[in-house]
Amino acid sequence: MRAVVKRGAEPGMDVHDVPAPVCGPSDVIIKVHFAGVCGTDLHIWEWDSWASARLRPPVIVGHEFAGEIVELGREAAAAGLLAIGDAVTAEGHIVCGHCLQCRLGAAHLCRRTQIIGVDRDGAFADFIAMPASNVMKLDGIPCEIGAIMDPIGNAVHTVLEGESVSGSSVLVLGCGPIGCFAVGVARAAGASLVVASDFNERRLALARAMGAQLTLNPERDDVVARVRELTSGDGADLVCEMSGHPSGHAQAFAAARLGGRVNLLGTPSRTTEVDFAREVIFKGLTLYGVTGRKMYQTWHQMRRFLKAGQFDPRPVITHRFPLEGIGDAIRVIKEGQAGKVILEVAHD
Amino acid sequence: MRAVVKRGAEPGMDVHDVPAPVCGPSDVIIKVHFAGVCGTDLHIWEWDSWASARLRPPVIVGHEFAGEIVELGREAAAAGLLAIGDAVTAEGHIVCGHCLQCRLGAAHLCRRTQIIGVDRDGAFADFIAMPASNVMKLDGIPCEIGAIMDPIGNAVHTVLEGESVSGSSVLVLGCGPIGCFAVGVARAAGASLVVASDFNERRLALARAMGAQLTLNPERDDVVARVRELTSGDGADLVCEMSGHPSGHAQAFAAARLGGRVNLLGTPSRTTEVDFAREVIFKGLTLYGVTGRKMYQTWHQMRRFLKAGQFDPRPVITHRFPLEGIGDAIRVIKEGQAGKVILEVAHD
Amino acid sequence: MRAVVKRGAEPGMDVHDVPAPVCGPSDVIIKVHFAGVCGTDLHIWEWDSWASARLRPPVIVGHEFAGEIVELGREAAAAGLLAIGDAVTAEGHIVCGHCLQCRLGAAHLCRRTQIIGVDRDGAFADFIAMPASNVMKLDGIPCEIGAIMDPIGNAVHTVLEGESVSGSSVLVLGCGPIGCFAVGVARAAGASLVVASDFNERRLALARAMGAQLTLNPERDDVVARVRELTSGDGADLVCEMSGHPSGHAQAFAAARLGGRVNLLGTPSRTTEVDFAREVIFKGLTLYGVTGRKMYQTWHQMRRFLKAGQFDPRPVITHRFPLEGIGDAIRVIKEGQAGKVILEVAHD
Amino acid sequence: MRAVVKRGAEPGMDVHDVPAPVCGPSDVIIKVHFAGVCGTDLHIWEWDSWASARLRPPVIVGHEFAGEIVELGREAAAAGLLAIGDAVTAEGHIVCGHCLQCRLGAAHLCRRTQIIGVDRDGAFADFIAMPASNVMKLDGIPCEIGAIMDPIGNAVHTVLEGESVSGSSVLVLGCGPIGCFAVGVARAAGASLVVASDFNERRLALARAMGAQLTLNPERDDVVARVRELTSGDGADLVCEMSGHPSGHAQAFAAARLGGRVNLLGTPSRTTEVDFAREVIFKGLTLYGVTGRKMYQTWHQMRRFLKAGQFDPRPVITHRFPLEGIGDAIRVIKEGQAGKVILEVAHD
Repeated sequence: MRAVVKRGAEPGMDVHDVPAPVCGPSDVIIKVHFAGVCGTDLHIWEWDSWASARLRPPVIVGHEFAGEIVELGREAAAAGLLAIGDAVTAEGHIVCGHCLQCRLGAAHLCRRTQIIGVDRDGAFADFIAMPASNVMKLDGIPCEIGAIMDPIGNAVHTVLEGESVSGSSVLVLGCGPIGCFAVGVARAAGASLVVASDFNERRLALARAMGAQLTLNPERDDVVARVRELTSGDGADLVCEMSGHPSGHAQAFAAARLGGRVNLLGTPSRTTEVDFAREVIFKGLTLYGVTGRKMYQTWHQMRRFLKAGQFDPRPVITHRFPLEGIGDAIRVIKEGQAGKVILEVAHD
Repeated sequence: MRAVVKRGAEPGMDVHDVPAPVCGPSDVIIKVHFAGVCGTDLHIWEWDSWASARLRPPVIVGHEFAGEIVELGREAAAAGLLAIGDAVTAEGHIVCGHCLQCRLGAAHLCRRTQIIGVDRDGAFADFIAMPASNVMKLDGIPCEIGAIMDPIGNAVHTVLEGESVSGSSVLVLGCGPIGCFAVGVARAAGASLVVASDFNERRLALARAMGAQLTLNPERDDVVARVRELTSGDGADLVCEMSGHPSGHAQAFAAARLGGRVNLLGTPSRTTEVDFAREVIFKGLTLYGVTGRKMYQTWHQMRRFLKAGQFDPRPVITHRFPLEGIGDAIRVIKEGQAGKVILEVAHD
Repeated sequence: MRAVVKRGAEPGMDVHDVPAPVCGPSDVIIKVHFAGVCGTDLHIWEWDSWASARLRPPVIVGHEFAGEIVELGREAAAAGLLAIGDAVTAEGHIVCGHCLQCRLGAAHLCRRTQIIGVDRDGAFADFIAMPASNVMKLDGIPCEIGAIMDPIGNAVHTVLEGESVSGSSVLVLGCGPIGCFAVGVARAAGASLVVASDFNERRLALARAMGAQLTLNPERDDVVARVRELTSGDGADLVCEMSGHPSGHAQAFAAARLGGRVNLLGTPSRTTEVDFAREVIFKGLTLYGVTGRKMYQTWHQMRRFLKAGQFDPRPVITHRFPLEGIGDAIRVIKEGQAGKVILEVAHD
Repeated sequence: MRAVVKRGAEPGMDVHDVPAPVCGPSDVIIKVHFAGVCGTDLHIWEWDSWASARLRPPVIVGHEFAGEIVELGREAAAAGLLAIGDAVTAEGHIVCGHCLQCRLGAAHLCRRTQIIGVDRDGAFADFIAMPASNVMKLDGIPCEIGAIMDPIGNAVHTVLEGESVSGSSVLVLGCGPIGCFAVGVARAAGASLVVASDFNERRLALARAMGAQLTLNPERDDVVARVRELTSGDGADLVCEMSGHPSGHAQAFAAARLGGRVNLLGTPSRTTEVDFAREVIFKGLTLYGVTGRKMYQTWHQMRRFLKAGQFDPRPVITHRFPLEGIGDAIRVIKEGQAGKVILEVAHD
């Protein structure tokens, strides 16, 4: 089968012909229809310090996908929940089920997490083998959306962690694809005011398309002052930090109201200077680090939003390429003008 | 009456003879029996940057106290809840009751908080006027303990915020008086393991007296490694950061388990470099900034612990001085070898 | 001034000329523009067992209203938060501020609650005196809506108590005005599916106008079976029991999913036979009794929804009468075909 | 091997010689050392309406046990978490892992739960096969205690569900073994006041042995009045209803404070008349139905309490019999004078 493979300890990836995966007793084989390309894939392409420390090539890249079940292992079939032909996506974090976190209902923080496309073969391929327990039926959700439920789930996790956002004011810092999804999720979840901020005007346009009532560009707007203005001087109930930039952290702490919450998803590549007394303690803030998707509360909430039509992520998709166009996909992400980039792996 | 007064914009404070406070319609006048001396009072004595930016001398210093009601205003009397002769202490944060935080049950974060002994006249005096709604009856709690319910309340707030600590592992970083109280509160609240850390051996002895099952000195112990060792490699469920030192922050993030919580009370005088990706986000941590005492949930829980005898803070009291000994009190705090320091204002 | 007065221990109420209220130091006087008529007012009119046990005539009736501040007491003026001419409504539960519930942030359950129009003079009058702390500015919310924020607040409290309803399935049993408001609040708060049930077709039409995706009539529909059908056999995440009928309780318990929640607002006039083992314990249900509005979280959330236009309760208003039409208002409520009934007290 | 078997649709059970269980790939075989006898086993013995509707004889009875691993299936061995010789107990609810409840972290409410000793072969036998994922290592907890972690877990679930009990007042209604365990758990978790009530003086003595500060007998004590007296007239923060008797429900609702919580574990055999308006709604109560143990939060908390020595359930064990003494065990339970009854299955 075709697969995008990271072959060695150097930049780049290539499409190769590799053996199709074998189906274990509790696995299913999924024919991939669509796959999403993510910032993580860019890190892997570029072979940066994170990638070189974590990956052990050769490995098939890609962790966001949806497709159709074409084979079930013996135990997966016996469970009777999945069938050949089912349209599905999957949680890409494969967890141990035994560590403290797994036992306490926080499997997204499993000590032994294996991520597809990073720690084991991934989804930029004609077929992928997945443990049946990680597979989610689409139940009518379009397959193209199914392919990006991994990053949408990051947004759902970020927006819904903490007190209900119904009736709240939400500030989203950073309007990459997950930031844009967060805007839409906050609106779907009943937020009263959603403000989004980014330096990139194209991204701000996507945020508006997802429902942001106001978009700000820190180059010309005083983000903190504008948020206070819109909230009777109080600040935002929830700040979703999706930029991963130290200046985003400072803005997040300043824009959150006394007793507010900052959920942090953007992963900075360097340290931030924090004045804990002034920025966090005297303000009574709660900060929360977002990793992955809650397994499987986040998936459940996301499916409800998508099936009820409360939230449609498709305006964020700006580019589509065939599997062989992986190089172009990486390039448009690197150029910073793309929303979500999709690989159209199969055309049935 | 006698009062410890900060008279001008310079270091020091003095005992002066000043007019006794007048009782407003919704106030009570309390004859002070005991008062607690706090790190904040040291800042005021030394006239550091925080103090000089916030205080407007002359002001009577002191915010921790207990005593006896000697006069009630008209409305305070009409409410019928307090009586002359009642042994009482008081919440020293006087809040507006109208801002968003006050309305949402987070009055400890009131935008217009006035702190006694800082923003208005305080408790190092023979008498103090307090709004009746801030006054708490001691109901049999010894008056000396009543005088330090302000810092004990800080510890209660720090330990009890978040998931229940019953059955949890708790690491207390920094064994000043509030850290020592936190140790005792964690034990009273059913924590299974309480570890305390400080550079000062005397303070570690106080922490042990309050129930710490293990005390560590970062000079000779690898705090993070020892905590992991004691928790099957997982780390602590809750870290109470009471040191206010950047090295405490790093230790707190490292020692907390995946999905754990760090409640921050110690207020650092400088910034901390935080690697949010590695220290907070990938670990799924929750951080919470502790200000004051929840009004009045914290007081209610604290009174229950104290009245039931589940927690006795008195081993932490190491020094007692008369009101005129304020200079000695400040000195022993500055020397760093003291636990809690008390002023014995009246001897009836 | 004119006022609807319950004069003695017998059915009925009349419009009388009575002295205007006097403004206490912490009160405001509000000129009433609109008032809402409630089922409670019907009980008072009919002088049933509840009314005769609780009221001590003579008393001015009415607890739902909005209007304009025309006088401020000395302390109310000093606080500087309210001004003459402000359009306002008010929380009608006047609480003590001192009992355990008040101190723990549950003032809606104050042991000494006094309700306007029940325990003290109410709002069916040209003017009413209210403690300033109970007064809420409308800030642009239409005055007619302001007049019914008391029952809308009951709905907000019922729908938002517990886990977030964002992405949830909600069943509303009983489509009186508060049930209809609950439908709209659930939609505003991001519920994915809102089903409403009532025996009365006019009320079901109002529920649909408020956004119910499906309405059921127990006379012809198997409510529990239909809800299961729509939820993959699971049942509803949240059931709002607004009917107050024992058959509503049974349906609520049966229609809730395993681990679901039933929030009970409808107050039955007789007992219900509950099979706790089968209906509650083996299902792992949570039941919650809804009283009043959380003070003031509920008000805050409600104002956000109303100001952002996420929820418009006006389709539920079916009848409007002048103050003198109180008898007609009571009659249409009694006939059971009305939605919300409003008194137009002043026409400026 | 020996096993206590329910052979047919009639009262009684007998010890028989049956084939030892076969070890599936993801199972382990445990040699049973101790087993606990439960009220459920009495229902099965007596073949009451519940038992005859649910069981399909022949089945080996018994769901509380601990012992030693003697065999591991292929996959169980590969996971590397369990080893031959490990002292273990097990969660007796075998869940599907796929239904909504399982996916949302509420597997104790799995739609397809199979209970050992009820729906499949149980633990009153020399050996039992269990899925490896249900097995819990004892890690030093005495095996006799391990054998009763199922009912101790019921108590932990009942006491810890809801707000933290640290500093709270707790009323336990019904002092059978689980009620007595609840007393001990509440003390371990930092409750300030634990009151227990039962008609049986022997059981009240066991409750005192577990730490109840006051025991009441409804035959001579006014339970509700005494609880109010001890709580400044407020009532208990948490009532644990373990009696399963309609009179217990009425007492629970009456003794809980405004805004309090009633966690219901005792399963009544008949319906209760509830006055929802007066008993639940106007009081703002939360009711919660307790089923099983949270998988696996409850187990985790319980192990912490037991390993730290915060709670020792052994005073509640009043009778020990060999496996062949099952008839005597059932008899002493039926007589109502027993605490916890244990079968000593193996003596190594």
